[in-house]
Amino acid sequence: MNAAGLDVLLHAPRSPERWLQALAAAAPLHRFHLQLPEHPERIRAWVGWAAPLEHFVPMTGLALVLPLGAGVDALVDRPDLRSEVQIVRLVDAGMAEQMVEYALYAALQYQRGFARYREQQARGEWQPLRRRSRGSVQIGVLGLGALGAAVAGELARFGYRVAGWSRSAKSLPGVQCLSGAAGLNDMLRVSEVLIDLLPSTADTRGLLDRQHLALLPAGGQLVLASRGDRYDSRALLECLQSGQLGGAQIDVFAHEPLPANDPLWRCRGVAITPHVAAMTVLEDSVAQIAANLDRFVNGQPLLGLVDRQRGY
Amino acid sequence: MNAAGLDVLLHAPRSPERWLQALAAAAPLHRFHLQLPEHPERIRAWVGWAAPLEHFVPMTGLALVLPLGAGVDALVDRPDLRSEVQIVRLVDAGMAEQMVEYALYAALQYQRGFARYREQQARGEWQPLRRRSRGSVQIGVLGLGALGAAVAGELARFGYRVAGWSRSAKSLPGVQCLSGAAGLNDMLRVSEVLIDLLPSTADTRGLLDRQHLALLPAGGQLVLASRGDRYDSRALLECLQSGQLGGAQIDVFAHEPLPANDPLWRCRGVAITPHVAAMTVLEDSVAQIAANLDRFVNGQPLLGLVDRQRGY
Repeated sequence: MNAAGLDVLLHAPRSPERWLQALAAAAPLHRFHLQLPEHPERIRAWVGWAAPLEHFVPMTGLALVLPLGAGVDALVDRPDLRSEVQIVRLVDAGMAEQMVEYALYAALQYQRGFARYREQQARGEWQPLRRRSRGSVQIGVLGLGALGAAVAGELARFGYRVAGWSRSAKSLPGVQCLSGAAGLNDMLRVSEVLIDLLPSTADTRGLLDRQHLALLPAGGQLVLASRGDRYDSRALLECLQSGQLGGAQIDVFAHEPLPANDPLWRCRGVAITPHVAAMTVLEDSVAQIAANLDRFVNGQPLLGLVDRQRGY
Repeated sequence: MNAAGLDVLLHAPRSPERWLQALAAAAPLHRFHLQLPEHPERIRAWVGWAAPLEHFVPMTGLALVLPLGAGVDALVDRPDLRSEVQIVRLVDAGMAEQMVEYALYAALQYQRGFARYREQQARGEWQPLRRRSRGSVQIGVLGLGALGAAVAGELARFGYRVAGWSRSAKSLPGVQCLSGAAGLNDMLRVSEVLIDLLPSTADTRGLLDRQHLALLPAGGQLVLASRGDRYDSRALLECLQSGQLGGAQIDVFAHEPLPANDPLWRCRGVAITPHVAAMTVLEDSVAQIAANLDRFVNGQPLLGLVDRQRGY
């Protein structure tokens, strides 16, 4: 099998030619198809986004799936992906530095009161607010994977007080690391800015429900940048409207694009971005995918292999 | 004179007791007065803000003036301050880290399009914008003193492309350093985000006039955080209204508080903060002032001594 290239289906609805050209240059051994070929059973690997229902059914020889985004939750338990198909995810791929920017902007905005100054400006009001130092602001990061660890680490280096929570215990320099259900509650109770970067799994879906949101300190801020199934949007709206939460910077929604009539668009204190907190970077992603295709044909361990039972 | 304390007038209109207590604890050798004493000629040093007209006239024995802000432009050529009175300014005193936060927020907002996303949100519009990397964004910093050097250095370390301009040539790691009139024009022509941190002197007053503003690239951003006499507000308004400038984050104004009828309050793309970009930090300032009072009585060189001819 060594040195025999794979037939790869590329499903990149937004800009197929750009991805095709980059992949062909980075992985010249393999043959990339934009449409199912005459013999779909020859497709051994799939690269892409947003596979429609039953998309994988004709690819009976499929062995390897390489999604072009950080999340694999839409793939792990699809009935048309046989359990022996291996899924590898992008690890960082330029997304961590973007997530650091997204989180740092939210942290600075909270610390220095920029959103409140905008409200005052709308009223023509000149009113200095009490200054907070970085070291006095407590930030909590949910999830300490590639993205969460980068965000927690950078915010701590910049001088914020940072705690991080993950399913299994971790250790990061400068970050108070918590785990387990008790650790989660402890972190929520003190987090003035809570940044959600957990992967989407059966365990984390709906995690930010009414009960957990109620633990956050009054006036706290949410940064929701992982998946829209993490939070209860009705409970979130109520917490924002009552003032129990001070604001939220939201990039991910249960339904995207966010429907035009959704009350989140106009809720006071809410900043909405259209799923852009961390976008896939073509160069980095292509390099990872090319490496994994070559590793597959050479029988080497895959990088970023997903545990389909665990979900990430 | 050694070990003989000074009589010091403390003129801190906003919170005199707080400053008095802190100074008394940090500089126990000296005697602090909140009002002119019976023999005003005994006052040898002055600490404070916002001295009214002719404030210094009765203090015929005054030798040392220690203002509680970064700028000394209101003091250097006052007729009631004899030319032999020495002025020492606060050097950083906790202001640099605040200015870094203020500038970084503006840089992130520009790079990641947060202001445009807010405009889209107001229209209920879901539209991802093209991503810019930090390394593709050119930032210019006017002034490379304690504040400007800290801001330029931190933005460069964070990954932005940074140039800095100062009157005399300087050198800073990671920052393209320019000087002179030609250097100024070169820097303005490429600065997508221009951050003004020059001291206020006869040379820098009105520097950001119509001609200099016109050199900035179309859609560029201004961050005005030093003094309100730096820029021509009418020219600024026209550049913003025509779209030649994309926006401005403004902390300082020719008249403060900014008058309620000033059109800047409601100009599209303008964010107004009420002179809070870098506030004096009591602890750091008190430590510097106590050190300089002791240095003065011991005949040691003063830290932050101002050249009254040069103006800073």
